[in-house]
Amino acid sequence: MAKIRLYIDHPLAAGQPVPLEQGQAHYLSGVMRQKPGDRVRVFNGRDGEWLAELDQVGKRGGSVTPVEPSAPQQDPPDLWLCFAPIKKARTDFIVEKAAEMGAARILPVQTDHTNSERIRQDRLQAHAIEAAEQCGGTYVPPVDDLTPLSRLLDGWDEARRILWADEALAGPAQTLAGLQGGPWAILIGPEGGFSAAERTRLRSLPFVTPVSLGPRILRADTAAVAALALWQASLGDWR
Amino acid sequence: MAKIRLYIDHPLAAGQPVPLEQGQAHYLSGVMRQKPGDRVRVFNGRDGEWLAELDQVGKRGGSVTPVEPSAPQQDPPDLWLCFAPIKKARTDFIVEKAAEMGAARILPVQTDHTNSERIRQDRLQAHAIEAAEQCGGTYVPPVDDLTPLSRLLDGWDEARRILWADEALAGPAQTLAGLQGGPWAILIGPEGGFSAAERTRLRSLPFVTPVSLGPRILRADTAAVAALALWQASLGDWR
Repeated sequence: MAKIRLYIDHPLAAGQPVPLEQGQAHYLSGVMRQKPGDRVRVFNGRDGEWLAELDQVGKRGGSVTPVEPSAPQQDPPDLWLCFAPIKKARTDFIVEKAAEMGAARILPVQTDHTNSERIRQDRLQAHAIEAAEQCGGTYVPPVDDLTPLSRLLDGWDEARRILWADEALAGPAQTLAGLQGGPWAILIGPEGGFSAAERTRLRSLPFVTPVSLGPRILRADTAAVAALALWQASLGDWR
Repeated sequence: MAKIRLYIDHPLAAGQPVPLEQGQAHYLSGVMRQKPGDRVRVFNGRDGEWLAELDQVGKRGGSVTPVEPSAPQQDPPDLWLCFAPIKKARTDFIVEKAAEMGAARILPVQTDHTNSERIRQDRLQAHAIEAAEQCGGTYVPPVDDLTPLSRLLDGWDEARRILWADEALAGPAQTLAGLQGGPWAILIGPEGGFSAAERTRLRSLPFVTPVSLGPRILRADTAAVAALALWQASLGDWR
């Protein structure tokens, strides 16, 4: 079984060669010492995973040809992760974990206590792709650009419920046991939490459900992973 | 409210000065610009959290005197985390998250597919302390030295059940809903998983319960955080 998995943003079909990006070609030839005829697994986020054969590979590029399907396309449940970006390494971590754990879309949000005013969307998207390559997933969650929380809430579709990890609820509290399935989003605040105005608004919205993540104060990255795990086990595809 | 929290490994009581370590003294005076009379919060893992006053602080050391209790001692549930060390940054991360999320003891285990033959126990313990300082906890989980899994299982107290995150169970499977409380340990494997011999032994042990963490393959650090969250929400102090 070919161990190398590559995300390739082209339609995949048996016998149809697809080009490698320069970085992938370098990785395959320079790092992994792959040669024409060697096999890899490829996916594009839509067409499942394919066993593919290297046609040619060098420093500047190359191509692979899908041979046969090796795994069906498997999309995650309809769960978004909205989070306030924090320090670089921890933001990278959140995106990686969200992709691994099966978030369908990743939305960095700017809150009143968010320090960063911009993010490197392309770098975060690359992290999501790499996580999908590593974890055997066939889906890559799109990473949005940074959006102010207020604007996100202004345009929110009320059919999508929000699971709000509210640090003020620290201590035993509501579990996810009684919640209904359907479209959801998890909302994680920045270090320092949400502002009073944000909290007032969130509390007033009928589609927002506050949830506690225990009696200790969790870092934002911990809270994101914990909330994803609890949602997936209660309402998602870990059931 | 004093924002700085320090772990001090001395008995804490009102009016009894306790010494600062050199690193703490440097952090307080050089980084945080604290002066005698300024207030910090201190804890030792046993006596709760105390508001304390800086007596003297300089490059070489200093002391603080507890004034009054600011939070009661709060021990986590009787949950151990046993995990196979992986790359340095991810191992550090697992220890940090375990301390934040309320593991009572952290046991690095050497498995057949574990690459590292030693760990820096002192460095990992320092990570657990720092996580407790950050997350407002009053308890610091002890970090054991690296122990072979086989030896750990030879001496295992059968009253403590093991929740085994078994990647071969990928896909919807048993939830934690029906499990009983009491002493537990979570067991997370290395990248590459457990060996066939280890899997055979684990499956034969009556106190081991395999659990699935969904249809995607999780990295070891993700699996650790996810399993901690699910256990805490089902059986621990997040209920």
